Amino acid sequence: MVDPEEAARRVAESFARQEFMATLGARLESVKPGEVEVALDVRPALLQQHGFVHAGVVSAIADSAAGYAALSLQPPGTEVLTAEFKLNLMAPARGTRLVARARVLRAGRTLTVAAADVFALQDGQETCVATLLGTIFSSARHP
Amino acid sequence: MVDPEEAARRVAESFARQEFMATLGARLESVKPGEVEVALDVRPALLQQHGFVHAGVVSAIADSAAGYAALSLQPPGTEVLTAEFKLNLMAPARGTRLVARARVLRAGRTLTVAAADVFALQDGQETCVATLLGTIFSSARHP
Amino acid sequence: MVDPEEAARRVAESFARQEFMATLGARLESVKPGEVEVALDVRPALLQQHGFVHAGVVSAIADSAAGYAALSLQPPGTEVLTAEFKLNLMAPARGTRLVARARVLRAGRTLTVAAADVFALQDGQETCVATLLGTIFSSARHP
Amino acid sequence: MVDPEEAARRVAESFARQEFMATLGARLESVKPGEVEVALDVRPALLQQHGFVHAGVVSAIADSAAGYAALSLQPPGTEVLTAEFKLNLMAPARGTRLVARARVLRAGRTLTVAAADVFALQDGQETCVATLLGTIFSSARHP
Repeated sequence: MVDPEEAARRVAESFARQEFMATLGARLESVKPGEVEVALDVRPALLQQHGFVHAGVVSAIADSAAGYAALSLQPPGTEVLTAEFKLNLMAPARGTRLVARARVLRAGRTLTVAAADVFALQDGQETCVATLLGTIFSSARHP
Repeated sequence: MVDPEEAARRVAESFARQEFMATLGARLESVKPGEVEVALDVRPALLQQHGFVHAGVVSAIADSAAGYAALSLQPPGTEVLTAEFKLNLMAPARGTRLVARARVLRAGRTLTVAAADVFALQDGQETCVATLLGTIFSSARHP
Repeated sequence: MVDPEEAARRVAESFARQEFMATLGARLESVKPGEVEVALDVRPALLQQHGFVHAGVVSAIADSAAGYAALSLQPPGTEVLTAEFKLNLMAPARGTRLVARARVLRAGRTLTVAAADVFALQDGQETCVATLLGTIFSSARHP
Repeated sequence: MVDPEEAARRVAESFARQEFMATLGARLESVKPGEVEVALDVRPALLQQHGFVHAGVVSAIADSAAGYAALSLQPPGTEVLTAEFKLNLMAPARGTRLVARARVLRAGRTLTVAAADVFALQDGQETCVATLLGTIFSSARHP
């Protein structure tokens, strides 16, 4: 059995080592068993040519949230790596804040399937701008 | 018919407006009809928890290269938006430099299918670390 | 506005013209605005080498359900074609019956994003064996 | 090391056990290390509502070809299962014959990434109608 509080600590420690999340200004907002939220404030540095948030930013927080949702169900000493993901961009990512909400669809010892929705906050309203479906590979950490 | 030089100028102008590419330190390396390369130097700011380049960075340059490969075949006044992509991460993205090489598989007036491979340069050797397959939506720019 | 009953009739008429659905023994179980179910009884003719239902069968009913969920929200005279889909196989597809349940995530005039889950019924219990995320292209039917 | 002839025999034996391939009329055309071809003759039983080959048929032969391309590089006693795939449909699948040509992009002990292109033969000309990118899971067969 995985202890949820211990797992949340492991997720937070790992997230803190992701320098790219700091580069994006992304924060770990919530960790529950199989569910993780990652958010960021929209800034010009994150935009593409039409002034929307770049798909790479959207995929970065969606992928991190999905990977940590997978890690939150794995025992101590496990490492996770994304094997693959697919991202559908459903609306222009504009607003003041983005949040990626990931959930595990199927947890396995080796492969976990997770989904994440990314919402943009604009004028007090959330719009779903993207959805991710991915596969995360788990392995015992090499000592 | 699309004029390759004029199309390459449009791609370069659009790329220059992607602030996120500057944030990543990504450069447009090459634009030919239906083929675009985007590269960056690996820096700590782009890494994930194991010291590899973050999947979000890999997907950002692969997606930009694929989108601009699509744009390079479209007439003036066209805008492109990624509808969706899938990324398979095949090896840890480590090294000193990443380059995404995209090519159009099928160009359509509305939908273009493009692929991109991402290579990491380490010790003078290139390794393919990821491959993207995506769909790009083209539309006439609103004046 | 789309009339749900008229749309359900159009979906049923189109489904009846899919000879491959008859080949699989697949039936249209339910059509609501943006939601479609397609089911089949498992037979030896649909299996792969380990005795599970072949991924091609799973994707066929998931794709048909997703495409018709998209069509159910489009006006008369519209045709739909799948542009792409991704399917994650989460558990061996074994049992007596498979049902694909699709729902539209975002309906657009040209592009619709839809998801479908496929469940296998075994010993009175349903297991989710696969999930699809896809993009459907809509266009006016050529007269 | 994997013996190519022995691997080709294993692929052929496994393919022969896929009853769904017989249902489709699909044949194993070629097996080389990391490369497999599967073909079928187009018949009314395989069509969708516009008279094109159904996406489920296209994905079935592309997925089988990709899975067996993966198996062709694995040692005796290995079983393969598709973890996930993405299929882009690039042109209507019409003609007299379809062939799926798969190749391994990266072979691993647990995960293999493979791609497949599907071509339709019409009036003596081949058109690429779809491309698949997928992940195959390998494991030791349970005795």
